[in-house]
Amino acid sequence: MRLTRRERRALQAELAGAGVTASIDDVLDLIDGVAAAPPGHDPEAWLALVAHPLPPPLKTRLMARLHEARAAQAPTPPDPEGRLALLRTQLRRRRLAGVLVPRGDEHQGEYVPGYSERLAWLTGFSGSAGLAIVLVDRAAMFIDGRYTVQVRQQVPEALFEFHHIMDSPPARWIARFLPAGSRLAYDPWLLTPNQVANYTAACEAVGGRFTPVTGNLVDAVWRGRPPPPIAPVYSHGIAFSGRTSSEKRHDVAARLIADTQDATVLSAPDSIAWLLNIRGGDVPHAPLPLAFAILRANTSVQLFLDPRKLTAGVASHLGDDVSVAAPGAMAAALDQLGAERRLVRIDPDGTPDWVVRRLKRAGARIARGADPCARPKAVKNAVELDGIRAAHRRDGAALAGFLAWLDREAPSGLVTEADAADRIDAFRSAADTFRGASFPTISAAGPNGAVVHYRVGADTDRHLEPGGLYLVDSGGQYPDGTTDVTRTIAIGAPSDEMRQRFTRVLKGHIAIATTRFPKGTTGSQLDTLARLALWDAGLDYDHGTGHGVGAYLSVHEGPQRISKQPNRVALEAGMIVSNEPGYYRNGVYGIRIENLVAVVPAPAPAGAEKELLGFETLTLAPIDRSLVDPTLLTAEEIHWLDTYHASVQSTIGPLIDPDTRDWLAHATRPLGADRAALGAANGGE
Amino acid sequence: MRLTRRERRALQAELAGAGVTASIDDVLDLIDGVAAAPPGHDPEAWLALVAHPLPPPLKTRLMARLHEARAAQAPTPPDPEGRLALLRTQLRRRRLAGVLVPRGDEHQGEYVPGYSERLAWLTGFSGSAGLAIVLVDRAAMFIDGRYTVQVRQQVPEALFEFHHIMDSPPARWIARFLPAGSRLAYDPWLLTPNQVANYTAACEAVGGRFTPVTGNLVDAVWRGRPPPPIAPVYSHGIAFSGRTSSEKRHDVAARLIADTQDATVLSAPDSIAWLLNIRGGDVPHAPLPLAFAILRANTSVQLFLDPRKLTAGVASHLGDDVSVAAPGAMAAALDQLGAERRLVRIDPDGTPDWVVRRLKRAGARIARGADPCARPKAVKNAVELDGIRAAHRRDGAALAGFLAWLDREAPSGLVTEADAADRIDAFRSAADTFRGASFPTISAAGPNGAVVHYRVGADTDRHLEPGGLYLVDSGGQYPDGTTDVTRTIAIGAPSDEMRQRFTRVLKGHIAIATTRFPKGTTGSQLDTLARLALWDAGLDYDHGTGHGVGAYLSVHEGPQRISKQPNRVALEAGMIVSNEPGYYRNGVYGIRIENLVAVVPAPAPAGAEKELLGFETLTLAPIDRSLVDPTLLTAEEIHWLDTYHASVQSTIGPLIDPDTRDWLAHATRPLGADRAALGAANGGE
Repeated sequence: MRLTRRERRALQAELAGAGVTASIDDVLDLIDGVAAAPPGHDPEAWLALVAHPLPPPLKTRLMARLHEARAAQAPTPPDPEGRLALLRTQLRRRRLAGVLVPRGDEHQGEYVPGYSERLAWLTGFSGSAGLAIVLVDRAAMFIDGRYTVQVRQQVPEALFEFHHIMDSPPARWIARFLPAGSRLAYDPWLLTPNQVANYTAACEAVGGRFTPVTGNLVDAVWRGRPPPPIAPVYSHGIAFSGRTSSEKRHDVAARLIADTQDATVLSAPDSIAWLLNIRGGDVPHAPLPLAFAILRANTSVQLFLDPRKLTAGVASHLGDDVSVAAPGAMAAALDQLGAERRLVRIDPDGTPDWVVRRLKRAGARIARGADPCARPKAVKNAVELDGIRAAHRRDGAALAGFLAWLDREAPSGLVTEADAADRIDAFRSAADTFRGASFPTISAAGPNGAVVHYRVGADTDRHLEPGGLYLVDSGGQYPDGTTDVTRTIAIGAPSDEMRQRFTRVLKGHIAIATTRFPKGTTGSQLDTLARLALWDAGLDYDHGTGHGVGAYLSVHEGPQRISKQPNRVALEAGMIVSNEPGYYRNGVYGIRIENLVAVVPAPAPAGAEKELLGFETLTLAPIDRSLVDPTLLTAEEIHWLDTYHASVQSTIGPLIDPDTRDWLAHATRPLGADRAALGAANGGE
Repeated sequence: MRLTRRERRALQAELAGAGVTASIDDVLDLIDGVAAAPPGHDPEAWLALVAHPLPPPLKTRLMARLHEARAAQAPTPPDPEGRLALLRTQLRRRRLAGVLVPRGDEHQGEYVPGYSERLAWLTGFSGSAGLAIVLVDRAAMFIDGRYTVQVRQQVPEALFEFHHIMDSPPARWIARFLPAGSRLAYDPWLLTPNQVANYTAACEAVGGRFTPVTGNLVDAVWRGRPPPPIAPVYSHGIAFSGRTSSEKRHDVAARLIADTQDATVLSAPDSIAWLLNIRGGDVPHAPLPLAFAILRANTSVQLFLDPRKLTAGVASHLGDDVSVAAPGAMAAALDQLGAERRLVRIDPDGTPDWVVRRLKRAGARIARGADPCARPKAVKNAVELDGIRAAHRRDGAALAGFLAWLDREAPSGLVTEADAADRIDAFRSAADTFRGASFPTISAAGPNGAVVHYRVGADTDRHLEPGGLYLVDSGGQYPDGTTDVTRTIAIGAPSDEMRQRFTRVLKGHIAIATTRFPKGTTGSQLDTLARLALWDAGLDYDHGTGHGVGAYLSVHEGPQRISKQPNRVALEAGMIVSNEPGYYRNGVYGIRIENLVAVVPAPAPAGAEKELLGFETLTLAPIDRSLVDPTLLTAEEIHWLDTYHASVQSTIGPLIDPDTRDWLAHATRPLGADRAALGAANGGE
């Protein structure tokens, strides 16, 4: 962002007049960082990082500067050919056979900031998971089943081969094409120790080496790469967190002590946000500050995070036991752990390889173990659970408004997927506690519903057509909770096949919602319950049944999961998971029914020897009755649906306008009511 | 075994007279090896290894020598204190802080030969799983839940601490007691690479080292250690195997080629026996020859096995592509793979660490991957399946005889567990194809039934008392198949609680027997179906639901499994698993219902999109109707039981004597018959 000398002088004067002590260059740097962060729900919040309060004219001027900075950072059109050539000059210069370019960043999170979008910059591929390996004479991209179509649309096949990462894994490609005796490079910040071990084995199997290099090779040739994002970091009050950071730090430190460990390095922003009761906004859809931290067994924390992000009061909120330093200071802190010969816990699936190498070189000893915040973060306390229930009530009210609108407007055939997505956002935004969508809304009509991770774009936008199904998967961030809900709606009259398959999905959903299981049971043990009714008909779905959900954190979190993929983590009272079986008829329609549920104690039957757990359904939104075939349901299943609908009506009804309330009453009337009516009709024959 | 000079001369003359060319010392060595093997079903079969035919007087003399050799090898009474002291002199001499003594041998099998029973020799512990770590000043034993009582009875607590291997793992004990900078030793023949990696991490975490040592430290102080066993190795005919060794070697080699590998080292005797269509008898309960083998991608095999074990004709059966050499020749063969710079597949959970070290040192490259024989061995071909069905018919006839006998004799209260175990053996032995029990029979009355891996001993033998339950888990080896079956029988009238809990176990058994699932489903995904009815009542059982079973091989084999423990192996048509849910009321009784089932294609319903699989029940034995509470069963469950019983009667009935047939007809009458009778009675009120 260039200013004329005159503009510069004017801004300098205004800043001085407002009592801002930072230099104008510092302020302009700050603005560049802010421009690299998502706008957030309060686009002016960042101004507090300059000074508070600011005179309105200065605010206006700074906002204008921000818009300019943002425009300057807008991504340039992709140029895979030119960029690949640039990257290969780096390979030749350093005598490397190739380089691995992952999609993830050093925090291994789902969303990465612009300055870490190396894979997208290099290849043009915008998917949320993928990997490129670039050799001097050939290159390959590895993507999963979600992205086999998209990668062909975005990346030239003349430059990259495309491989399904499970069916044709990178190790096999490496075995085939990496020349013996050569070196494949990687950036040790971007891979975990387990990833490095796998690629190392693959390279060594063919007599090559997997070599960490200093200085990312893509960064070396990426002109105009945005800076790291700067979004304000706030404290997350005890009214939401339910537990002080000091209490949490004691809990986690007790875990370290029990494992005879001296310290741990945290690299997951949601773990750090949870541990320190702070929130930020460096990436879209989750209120996360990008940061690293070292937690010692004495409960003290060194937090590595750009101090410019801290809003007033955060430092005192963090307290004396938490020191803050810029990310660049972490190397010295790791060296210090080494000098003290500490036993340091690292997560082999999370910590950057760079951190482990640095620790080892400095003389530290390494203990491998899961991020010690992951489990306690997943087990929500009573305050968090109350907040999550409250957030679901507000979210349910917004959903009722949306679904009533949809019921009114969609039969015309004029509503598009994009219209509907905008509308659901608008209904949620009406609540002043709404902090943004917890993930990009999936608004999918007809065949687009069968694309499991569909995202509407200008070229794919479809009308919601009568006779078709509409699938909408969306969620909100609220200071007291995070929501995630999917409903499938018949536009007009559904076919018998749609009703039968929807009902089988519903049976699976109810099986999970009503199951009781002994303490110690994992989500993997429950996954099949959601599929049995589909299996009976020779059907299934190709995704997990449930993921963990954060409390005003990531909408996807571990360590628990309901999945056929093995997961060894027992479900514990207080954990939140989604319950989202589905069915997808390729090219025709998609069905998914998703509620969030909390693990809760279940009453013990007489003679019980095991403590039992079950699920409390949190999400409050009607399930489309017109898609339910009651003849496929047992009496217990009908009872569940009627009871659920009664609870939606009694809880959400008081929160919505009278028209929506009337619609909701109709949408949630008992299935039995129809049957009684039907019975009466039959009786009249 | 010492002979007088006279005896020696006499034997020498007789051998010469019979045309035996081997020296008398060779023959005496052979007899020592034979004495170290289990007697087997034909105790004279080994004589063919001397020469065939032999004159009867020489046979008698050689058998007498064998009995003497066996007596000389009888285990000496345990002396943990003295032996621990001897082992510690070795530690001090070699400046080692300690040594790890596992129970397993270099083949990681379930049964180990006497010369590998190092843990038992050292500690007195005779369980089938366990581990000792001996430091110079303290020692610990790690056992699982099955052996927490037994270890206290067999091992002095003054010498060893006892730890549950899951709750208090060795790594934690090492972290606490291994002095920093010191070395914990292990025998690299006895641990797998993954085991070594785990212990290495544990030692390094506290600044110690996990060090392979040449020459086992226990062996160094074990006087009178038996020699490796010598049992005859036979060819396993195509009428049983259904596929030639050459075909199998091509299949497995194709797997190696697909994975770009040049060779694999096989260390599992059942893989080698399967691949080469041979059987042996070096360990109890499974017809296995202890051996190693190298299979190359060109389908050639180097078999490392004491050539004295080979019966006439095996060499020609093996053919030109299979060379046989003594086990000591393997080192040179591994060095050769290294010299050729081969990429060698090793199983990180099976291959001895020694093999991997040797290969690496010699210059070979290592690819980690599961034993490539495990999966094709688990998928039985049509000939094997027919054989297994035939074996189950003979086994079912024997069981019917046993159960009829039990029904007649047990109500007296005079039958003991040991009597019953002997009797089931006798009924099986009546079939001339019986090759021995496939594992030690569990014959457990009353509270002993709640001890999941109970084995009757003189001090635990109980009478089968009226009002109690009797649990019998047993199986047979036949040349055409391996069986494993558990039945729980009410002695006299059972209590309501027993009936209710038995019926819940039965519901779980039926749920597995009747489930249909898409191709690609793992046993872990099905495990919960066996537990749901118990969970509903707050009950569960603490073991897996099903294990793989070999075809005249080990009664426990992988890679598939029905278990809540994660298992990533899809069930495939042709695989055999057990279906054995249970319930155990500690100190009172145990219930288990076990049938073997084969995975088979299931008919696809209309509109099916997935290929479905299901189970065919193989075991043919009545389930005790007096323990079934029909009011807890659905109509479909009653139908399953009645249909199963009808099939038992029609299949086994023709194979048994008329008295047993009458008993079987009564034992397998439909449940509906009672209800009809009951209904008629009620109608008469």
